[in-house]
Formats: sequence, structure tokens, C-alpha cells
Amino acid sequence: MNNFTSVSDVDNIPGLIQQVLEIKKTSASTSFGKSKTLGLVFFNPSLRTRLSTEKAAKNLGMDVIVMNIDADAWNIEFADGAVMDGNTQEHITDAVRVISGYCDLLGVRTFAGLEDQQEDYQEQVLNKFVSHSSVPVISLESATRHPLQSLADMATIAESSIKTPKVVLSWAPHPKKLPQAVANSFLEWIVHIDAEITLAHPEGYELSPIFTKGVTINHNQEKAFVGADFVYAKNWSSFTHYGQTPPVQDNWTITEEKMNHTNKGRFMHCLPIRRNVVATDEVIDHSLVYNQAKNREYAAQAVLQNLLEAL
Amino acid sequence: MNNFTSVSDVDNIPGLIQQVLEIKKTSASTSFGKSKTLGLVFFNPSLRTRLSTEKAAKNLGMDVIVMNIDADAWNIEFADGAVMDGNTQEHITDAVRVISGYCDLLGVRTFAGLEDQQEDYQEQVLNKFVSHSSVPVISLESATRHPLQSLADMATIAESSIKTPKVVLSWAPHPKKLPQAVANSFLEWIVHIDAEITLAHPEGYELSPIFTKGVTINHNQEKAFVGADFVYAKNWSSFTHYGQTPPVQDNWTITEEKMNHTNKGRFMHCLPIRRNVVATDEVIDHSLVYNQAKNREYAAQAVLQNLLEAL
Amino acid sequence: MNNFTSVSDVDNIPGLIQQVLEIKKTSASTSFGKSKTLGLVFFNPSLRTRLSTEKAAKNLGMDVIVMNIDADAWNIEFADGAVMDGNTQEHITDAVRVISGYCDLLGVRTFAGLEDQQEDYQEQVLNKFVSHSSVPVISLESATRHPLQSLADMATIAESSIKTPKVVLSWAPHPKKLPQAVANSFLEWIVHIDAEITLAHPEGYELSPIFTKGVTINHNQEKAFVGADFVYAKNWSSFTHYGQTPPVQDNWTITEEKMNHTNKGRFMHCLPIRRNVVATDEVIDHSLVYNQAKNREYAAQAVLQNLLEAL
Repeated sequence: MNNFTSVSDVDNIPGLIQQVLEIKKTSASTSFGKSKTLGLVFFNPSLRTRLSTEKAAKNLGMDVIVMNIDADAWNIEFADGAVMDGNTQEHITDAVRVISGYCDLLGVRTFAGLEDQQEDYQEQVLNKFVSHSSVPVISLESATRHPLQSLADMATIAESSIKTPKVVLSWAPHPKKLPQAVANSFLEWIVHIDAEITLAHPEGYELSPIFTKGVTINHNQEKAFVGADFVYAKNWSSFTHYGQTPPVQDNWTITEEKMNHTNKGRFMHCLPIRRNVVATDEVIDHSLVYNQAKNREYAAQAVLQNLLEAL
Repeated sequence: MNNFTSVSDVDNIPGLIQQVLEIKKTSASTSFGKSKTLGLVFFNPSLRTRLSTEKAAKNLGMDVIVMNIDADAWNIEFADGAVMDGNTQEHITDAVRVISGYCDLLGVRTFAGLEDQQEDYQEQVLNKFVSHSSVPVISLESATRHPLQSLADMATIAESSIKTPKVVLSWAPHPKKLPQAVANSFLEWIVHIDAEITLAHPEGYELSPIFTKGVTINHNQEKAFVGADFVYAKNWSSFTHYGQTPPVQDNWTITEEKMNHTNKGRFMHCLPIRRNVVATDEVIDHSLVYNQAKNREYAAQAVLQNLLEAL
Repeated sequence: MNNFTSVSDVDNIPGLIQQVLEIKKTSASTSFGKSKTLGLVFFNPSLRTRLSTEKAAKNLGMDVIVMNIDADAWNIEFADGAVMDGNTQEHITDAVRVISGYCDLLGVRTFAGLEDQQEDYQEQVLNKFVSHSSVPVISLESATRHPLQSLADMATIAESSIKTPKVVLSWAPHPKKLPQAVANSFLEWIVHIDAEITLAHPEGYELSPIFTKGVTINHNQEKAFVGADFVYAKNWSSFTHYGQTPPVQDNWTITEEKMNHTNKGRFMHCLPIRRNVVATDEVIDHSLVYNQAKNREYAAQAVLQNLLEAL
């Protein structure tokens, strides 16, 4: 593994998931990463991702340096050939080359702008990091994917030891317009594990066909839930009418009543979650969400270890 | 000790104070906390508290992860059962459960709002942390108490080796309205050590009777100072007319002239101090304030060590 | 070396430069600074300086504590004797005494205000740190100097092994008004190494005579470039009409065409650089700028090591 930006960077996906669970079982700190530095660049704020990745790095004995772009520093220019006589202070090329020079591994978080589909789906920021970094790059969520979350999610499902579990990824309401990254990423990972995946969402909330190819889609949430072993909830805005939030007739909030249609299905969500909007308190309080969050640490540790081994 | 949120969490108060002074004497770094992580959550900014606690943790070989709520992340919902379709992004329950999952000890700082007495004195934020954290919680100052400061203050007084010192806690002027936390906490600690405590404040600035029970109160600052071995200055707003700052006739700024009434009394303050408002330059420049600040490090180290031992 | 605030603090300048290059060659991490804490105080944001200094400290096994003054904390009072009943919360005297009490070495970054020449050139903030700190102080750039940058620059020039290189420090355009610190500092360092220095700038952009004494000055950029081995570009605002940016007739942007006048001269800049304003993409892409940035780490490591040795 030379970078970790999507499932495509992983050679042995089931192997990596097993490694996550083994790290969790032993939970031993090592000095494998001693004298190695992980740089974490945040273009957008982060709680779980920063904490879990910092913790994972420290479990490996690594040093961690955090940069919050807006708070700590400066406006970045992304356009090649730009005449920088305006507000941007440093070109992404220079910033990445300099930062990566001080690190052994480099993580970066950036969000979709949700204004221009092509721009977001070209993953401009992430790809600039990959192009210009002199060290391996880890996505801490990008415009279209969140692979560390997905790896933790796969490990959470694998922990259940249910053979070919029925998994529903369900759209759920949210007061703000959100990126498609978590949903996209979940889909592109789950097709690689032994599971049966159904995508449930209202009409108008179709995801990019690149991610839904071969996935069963159901516009009726309750029907989709029948027999499910796992219900993964997530809001996203429209891909087709990019970044829009077309009105939804039915109530897609996930309730205990709806969960009763499942096969004692376990509720999952990447957090943070809007309680009583995405799902009710009862659903969240009997869910796997904290387990998922804790697995973020082990997922990050497995990824860091693989990248360090490949240095 | 399972948490450190007030003096009530401490079994052996004089023992803990002695431990602080022994850590100071040996000032040796240990690896007692190796591979343990201290999470520090700041709802309000901090200088001394963050630095001294980080330093203490590193003296013990711990890793430290800092979260500044406003700067780093997100708006927190505190109401149980809230329908989170507004501006709050994550419920305190979920935030605390997730954060504590990545840590071995968890510190939290929060201030009084000074709008609603009952709300502040119920210690909503701190108590949510204690309820939902899976690891021991350390108060880095809360709405009504500042126990790490008080422990450092007790150690500073104990260092003098004066038998039954006469200690005056004196209100002093300040341009802003401030919480009662430092004063409350000082009182609830000092009654446990060998000292004679007098509380001096203008009428209208009575503290909660919970903290002043059995404490001599004097509305005349100069008279209160007579024979004092220590003068501890602090501003606070009204408890009765909650958060108000009723006008004060006399000048309560602490001057050398006033200090001359004491028994070569030493001046104390928790810092930061408004010079020439709370006390004059001369008073501050011949005071114990830097010693108190330095003792914050050893106080934090003693508390962390006790909590680690009890894990 | 007791502090590192300007070239005057260094006893053996060529020796220090050689030490930087030896650290780079061996690039070994040590535990020389184990259990020592470096405090870094930023009055102004920083990328390269923070990262390179943190990395250097960690190479030495030191702990690092970062304070961003505006973000993390509070308004500082600088005036002695001030009656602090306004917006300032803590006096610089108290802040520095307290912070330095938690550290073994203390770095501070502050910028010129560019309003009042005398105020900036008196280095009020830096000097308060030096006066009140109980531990050695390192300038991470101050109002009038940037010695860690200059040390890295000298090491970058020394790496070339050109005997008595011809070095041009050239003013270049920039959309904002900038301090003179990097240029001042470069000049006061380079006169101590085996090099021939020319200063090129438009009329009106004279630097302080303290820094230009004995330096050849040329107002014609192209002529200055003839035969140069190194061209160091930097913008600065007027020293005489302090902080002003008088209009410049000629185009001082550094282009490949201009670089062709040099003796295969290498382009240098401290970064961040406004591309196609200070210099064109072609010039920057074939330059020493990333090498300079990387040498910042080794420069900081050499300085930290010297200060630790002198403790």
C-alpha cells in the first residue's frame, strides 16, 4: 500500500479488515513507528478523525503534527499557473512539498464544496497532495470518499461474524446539505466483503452510478429494512442536482418501529448524528455507533502500520 | 480517587498536598503513564491550565490530545431528547462517549454562564462528562469549582510551613463579571487544612452558603488583613443577584499599604491578574503568584498519577 | 549560546552552519532532549516555522507545547505600569514568567506592526520574552529578524561548496506590505560567511543602514544579477517611509530571462511565495526553495541542541 485514498489502494481488503480486528484484540502499543512523524492537514474541522488517527499514531509510537489550515495558517492557491496577486498566500504545490518534507506520512482532510459536481469528483485537493507529496498520503475524508470510516465500518460488520449479512445503507434526514462521501465509500468497500447490500433512499437522492453499480436500490425504506442484519444510516445531498436537497414526502427518520422490520438488525452511523432527526434516541442508544467510533482507532492504526511497512 | 472534580473526590487531602510537594522536590520525570492518553477538552480557552496539565502528563510519559471545542469542531447539544434539527451538531452524550473511548483519562474545562444560577450550580457540562465518560474525569475548572487551582494553592500555603496560618480570601475589583469558581473551591479546600480562614468582600458579594459555612466573613478589607499570613485575592460576581456586579463604595484594590497591616503576609492570586486593578505592581512583584502557577504543574501531576494508579 | 534571537547570539557562526549540515547528513534522531519541553508561542500564524521547529524538537526527543495567542487564549498587555481595566487580560511579564516556568526552552514568533518604525525596531515583544523568561529564548521570527531562516539559508548556500559565491539579495513585488525581517537577517548573517553580497532593490526600498553597512547596493536588477551564483528574492516595505509601498516603475518579478544573466545562479526564497508575482513558475520549479525549507528543520535542531547543551 503506497497511499490510502480509496479502497483501490488496498491489495488485500479482507486481510486489512482482519488486521484491524487483530489490533483491537491485542490492543498493544508498539514502538514500530518510533521516530516517524505523521502530519495531519485539516482543511475542515474534525473530531473523531483527528482523535482516532492521533491515538492510532501514538499507539505506534509516532510523533504527530497537526495543521488546521484556516486557523493555523493561510489561504491556499489551487490553480496551476495562477498569478498570485490576490488573497491566496501559498500554492498547494509548494505547501504540500514543504509539509511532506517534514513528515514520514501525511494525512489530509477536505470536504466537497457541493457547488460543482465535476470539481468535487475530480478530488482536486486530495490529488494535489498525492501528486506533490514526497511521502504516502492518507485520506482523512475527501470530497467523495471516507475510506478510514469505511474500513472501521467493515471491521464493525465483520466483528458480528454473521455469514453474508444483509446490510441496508439508508438515506436519512438532516437539516443541512451534506456530501456523499461516506455513502460512496461505504458502497465501494462493502462490495468487497461477504455481504448482501441494499441501498435505500428517496427518489432524487441517487448516488453516482460509479458507486451504485450492481447495488440493489429500494425507494421504500420499510421494505428495504425487512430481514436486515445491519442498517447503516447517512444523509447526503443530491448527486444529480448536485448539492441540492429536493423535498422528501415520507418520513425517513429511523425509528424503533422501523427497526422492528429487520432481523434484529444493528443500527450503524458514522457520527456525529443529529438525534431524533436521523434516528431516534432509542435507536441510537441500542446501536453500534460507539463501537464504530472506537474501531476508527484500530482502522487508522492498521493503515498507518501498512504504510510504514511499505516505506 | 475515581474522578477529580471537587475536594470531595479526594480521600486523603493532606496526603495529596504532601504528594504535590514531594513531586516538586524530586521533579523527576517517570514513565509511569507510558502508553496512556490524556484527552483535554476545552469549552473555554486556557493558558496555565492547559500548559501545566500537558506538562504534568508529559512528566509522567503520557500522550496528550487537546480539543478546543469552538475552534476545532462543533456545536454541542446538551438537552436530553432534543430534536437536533437546528445548529447543534452532536449530542454531549455521544461526544463524551466517543472521546473517552480514545483516552485513558479525560480533562474538561467549562465556565459558568453567569446567567442562570441553578443551571451553573448544577454543573451540567461537568456532570454529563462524569456520567458518560468511560474513563476518569478531571475538572480543569468548571462552573462552580477549580480544584486543580485549589490543590496548587494549598500546596503553596503548605510550603511556607507556618503552623495554622491566618489566610484571608479577599474580593478585589475587576472590569468584567467573573465566575465564583476559584473562590468557592479555595474555601472548600482550605477548611481541610490547618489554617484560619477569613473571607473579606463588599456587601452584595456573598458567596453561596454551601461554601461559606463556618467561614468568618468581614466586610472591611483592612481589618480583615490584620495579622494575615496570606492574602488570596480574587474577583467574583454576585451569587445572590446572580452574575451581577453591584457597585462597591470602597477601593478594594490590594496595595502595599494594605499589605502592611498583615503579618508580613504573602500575596496570592491564581492568574491571569489585571495589574493595578486587582492589586498594584508592587504587591504582585513581591508575591507568590509565579510559585502558585508552577505548583499547578505538580498538582496536576499528583492528580494524574493517583487516577492512573486507580485505573 | 544563551538565547537565539540574532546572529549576535552565536559565538561560532561557520561552526553552527557546519553543524546544521552534519545533522542533515546523519539525520539521526537522538534522545538528547528527552524530558525537556519546548514551548512555542505564536503571536502570528506560522506553517514552516512551527512544523520545522516541532520536527527538530521531536528529532531530539523533546516534548513540544504550542500556544497560539489569539486562538488559544488572551489579549496581552505590553505597557509597564498599565492600569489593566480595559481589554488586556494578562501582562506580558506575568505571561512570560508563567509560560517559561513550564518549559526548558521557549520560542516566540511576532511580526512587525509596520506602523511605527521605532516600536518595531526596539523589538518590544521579543525583548520582553528575553527579559522575563527563566529559560533560553529562541526567535521564531521577530519584528526585524528571522534568524532560523537565515541559518537555514546560510546552510543551503554552504551546501553548494562554491568558494566565495556571488549572492544577490533582490527585492521582488508582492501585493501586500511586508516586514523587513527576512532581508535584514539574511544580510547580517551573510557578512559572516565567505560570500560576495549585492543588494538589489528599487529606489525607495532602502533597508536600515544598520543592516546594509558594507553591502553593495544596485538599483538595476538585471545588472545586479550578472555573474550571480545565488539569487535570493524577497519583498519588503519601505524602511524610510516606514511600512509604505512606494510605486515601482520597472518589473522586478524574477523570470528565467533575468536568471539567464547569472552564472547558472540558483534561485532562493524563504516561502511562502506568490507564484508569478515574486518569481515565475519556471524559476521556482528549478530552485532551492524546498531545500531551504527542509534545512529549516536541521537549523532548528542545531540551535535547540546548542541551547540544551548550555542549560
